[in-house]
Amino acid sequence: MADQLDQLYEQLCEHARETARWGAIAHLLQWDERTMMPSADAENRAEELTLLSAHIHARKTDPRLGELIERLEDSPLAADPLSDTGVTIRRQRRDRDRAMKLPAGLVEELSRTSVLGQQCWQQAREDDDFAAFQPVLEKTLRLKREEAEALGYEDQPYDALLDEFEPDAKTTEVAGVLRELRRELIPLVSALAASDRRPPSEILSRHYPRAAQEAFGREVAAAIGFDFQRGRLDVTAHPFCSGVGPNDCRITTRYDERAPGSALFGTLHEAGHGIYEQGLRADQWGLPLGQDVSLGIHESQSRLWENMVGRSRAFWEHFYPRAQGHHFPESLTGVPLDDFFFAVNEAKPTLIRVEADEVTYNLHILIRFELELELLEDRLPVAELPAAWNAKYRDYLGIEPPNNAQGVLQDVHWSGGAIGYFPTYSLGNLYAAHWFQAAADALGDLDEQFARGEFTPLRDWLRENIHRQGRRFSATELLQHVTGESLSSEPLMAHLRSKYGLLYQLGDLGTGA
Amino acid sequence: MADQLDQLYEQLCEHARETARWGAIAHLLQWDERTMMPSADAENRAEELTLLSAHIHARKTDPRLGELIERLEDSPLAADPLSDTGVTIRRQRRDRDRAMKLPAGLVEELSRTSVLGQQCWQQAREDDDFAAFQPVLEKTLRLKREEAEALGYEDQPYDALLDEFEPDAKTTEVAGVLRELRRELIPLVSALAASDRRPPSEILSRHYPRAAQEAFGREVAAAIGFDFQRGRLDVTAHPFCSGVGPNDCRITTRYDERAPGSALFGTLHEAGHGIYEQGLRADQWGLPLGQDVSLGIHESQSRLWENMVGRSRAFWEHFYPRAQGHHFPESLTGVPLDDFFFAVNEAKPTLIRVEADEVTYNLHILIRFELELELLEDRLPVAELPAAWNAKYRDYLGIEPPNNAQGVLQDVHWSGGAIGYFPTYSLGNLYAAHWFQAAADALGDLDEQFARGEFTPLRDWLRENIHRQGRRFSATELLQHVTGESLSSEPLMAHLRSKYGLLYQLGDLGTGA
Repeated sequence: MADQLDQLYEQLCEHARETARWGAIAHLLQWDERTMMPSADAENRAEELTLLSAHIHARKTDPRLGELIERLEDSPLAADPLSDTGVTIRRQRRDRDRAMKLPAGLVEELSRTSVLGQQCWQQAREDDDFAAFQPVLEKTLRLKREEAEALGYEDQPYDALLDEFEPDAKTTEVAGVLRELRRELIPLVSALAASDRRPPSEILSRHYPRAAQEAFGREVAAAIGFDFQRGRLDVTAHPFCSGVGPNDCRITTRYDERAPGSALFGTLHEAGHGIYEQGLRADQWGLPLGQDVSLGIHESQSRLWENMVGRSRAFWEHFYPRAQGHHFPESLTGVPLDDFFFAVNEAKPTLIRVEADEVTYNLHILIRFELELELLEDRLPVAELPAAWNAKYRDYLGIEPPNNAQGVLQDVHWSGGAIGYFPTYSLGNLYAAHWFQAAADALGDLDEQFARGEFTPLRDWLRENIHRQGRRFSATELLQHVTGESLSSEPLMAHLRSKYGLLYQLGDLGTGA
Repeated sequence: MADQLDQLYEQLCEHARETARWGAIAHLLQWDERTMMPSADAENRAEELTLLSAHIHARKTDPRLGELIERLEDSPLAADPLSDTGVTIRRQRRDRDRAMKLPAGLVEELSRTSVLGQQCWQQAREDDDFAAFQPVLEKTLRLKREEAEALGYEDQPYDALLDEFEPDAKTTEVAGVLRELRRELIPLVSALAASDRRPPSEILSRHYPRAAQEAFGREVAAAIGFDFQRGRLDVTAHPFCSGVGPNDCRITTRYDERAPGSALFGTLHEAGHGIYEQGLRADQWGLPLGQDVSLGIHESQSRLWENMVGRSRAFWEHFYPRAQGHHFPESLTGVPLDDFFFAVNEAKPTLIRVEADEVTYNLHILIRFELELELLEDRLPVAELPAAWNAKYRDYLGIEPPNNAQGVLQDVHWSGGAIGYFPTYSLGNLYAAHWFQAAADALGDLDEQFARGEFTPLRDWLRENIHRQGRRFSATELLQHVTGESLSSEPLMAHLRSKYGLLYQLGDLGTGA
């Protein structure tokens, strides 16, 4: 009896692993599309990804899989929901239920629209032509509404979409914590703007040769723990990280010789994602215990390494001499560490989300979250989106995009059907601050360690507490399990107030700003 | 009735196109494995390729496909075997029959053994350790014998395997023309060795910077007609060309700063393959009329551009000033064109096939062809292969490998299960000489055109006469159709005698040498 159950369980795992392998093939095709593929072959790639997505959907709705789950979920193997077998069965049931609700035709159309939508968006952004993009976005929203209805929801359609990226999260809860964040961020942004202190940002518009940027980026990524024996770093227009196999995690960046921060912090960010992927349990590859919890948790790893570590003074105490003396003597000779440190931490309203600083970043996310909610609920017609976008930039950040390419067309997400994705960026920032506090409580003075170039204790703490848990817990459960806390804007705001209060000499910002 | 037939025909085409798309996905995975993938993920890639190969085999043996072919092959659409529809139906029947004979288990095992075999071979070659490779080769041969028996053959098992790479070719015929070639080549090699003339080969051991080699290679590949908008050039250990999509053909090369010929002629060679792929009918992608005839015909395109064009004096009359003045002034300033031309045409026995000159190249192939025939027929135990290899190198080329890495372990083919592949290289050389003669008859003085940098007439002639025919004809039928000739060693030998007779001042070599 136990033997037979073990066999069924192994069949369930084998089914999941094979499905994951087809998914990994799709990841490779997507990575290749964004780094290597001649654009002339875009249509074929869209067809290939559509084939794969249909094939994967067919596997997820395979009746044999349903039978396996059914026979296992009432067995002793599922009795403890937090045991390895319990987690696997429970999460497979969840994925299965979700997949069964989506008609194959809708899955195929979503996939095709996503790839073609991204291609259309790319051209529209190049041409600064929102009208060319509008019909695709309208079609995407129609399909996503259809998807939400098919999936079902308790409270509102957005819940169903959010769930794809941040399982178990609820729109009202996310909206609540983001509102709290907005309430505290806007006055902080104003206080920074009112400060007399200005970072010597000219330093970062000097010439930083591309080859040196790449060499330094590789050095730093390796130092914090990204394993290049099991990964790659390549160039792309819109950086991302992709796990294309259990021992193959690929990160990407882009280089601007007059703005070194883009590649440097971008590489740290993607390396943070990569370290999470590489820290997942290899023996559980393709199974829930070897998968990331959610995009919010994934993002918490990238933001932690990019911001809490990479933009800390201690980090630069260690790396600045190398950057200054070895990689960029042309631009950094004679520049004091504190000037460089302040320059890479300039906080000021700008137009482009991916280049935004730690303080203003979440306001970019809020704008997108609020707008996509309105779009999905048909409260905002797509034709009026550019104006609504610009109005929110005026309201929250006090600036206005000169064109749509630098405004509403800057992000790929909506074109690819990723509605419900944006808030996970802010969740990531919030989780990162929680983790960082907890790690500091456990590991002692992290700044001292960073200044000595020691990143292994922090990486191992993250691996142990987060990476190796896979999907045992949901995001909020994991936070509770590791820190005993509930998600709040406080750890992030405390970090921002303390760091930027010092940099901009704001005096005591209190807790309510 | 006609409408219904058209519908069935469209269904047949759609089935074939989807199968081709899965094949293209596999090509991308293979390209990636050999150019990009961290070797740590090799096992996963093997599993992915095995999944794909099983999936493709399932499609090829899909009963619905059998039905479609059956209903179409007795219809008016198949009445003319050379019409577009006739070719499609006839070739689909051929592929289907072949696929039906192969048990799915064998296909899967062949695929897995092929990927793991190549990984094992790579390590064995690095370590110069034939014993480590021996068990894999034995297993591969066992599987290939099983494959030959499953496929069936009229005359000998090798026929069944050869047919995969060179459809409709017969072992005895291929052996006949290769024997003829050997009889004429061995005395020519001796005559060259006996000549007093020696090329100034030191020129090619000077320093040729990698970046300049790459720039020059790209320039030359584009000039002969490789379309970089629909393709890429990357670096690999063992160069190849892969069509990964209708508008995405990827060629590869490798750079040695002390041996520029490797990348230069390698790039020309792969560009020749690429021009064939890019010349196939896009509207017939995935269908027989949009596919290459055979590996021999494919190789005839690469060898024609590499050797008949790229190693001609006229070609260098055009490109040498640019190579000398712009790309490699450090090494070529003061070197006369004729010295450079002689140096890139040095003919002398060497150990490595892929670096061999036009004259000795086919002797390398003969050795492999004869040995794999003996291995397959169990007349040569794998343990004795290295000794047999070395003995043949002594007999045919008068040299002996100092180790197995430079001997029997130098080629990837056997490790990947490609038994019956090697002779297609020599067939390619033979066909190339036929085409070149026919093109010269049709286009007038090709040398004059090359010297002016005009390669379009030749490329268009090849496109019209060969590329755009797809699989309408078999290789020998195509030769007959285009030139009115049967395959013979004469055109190639005439080319070699005339060119090398002049270079090495051998006087009149007659026709029998």
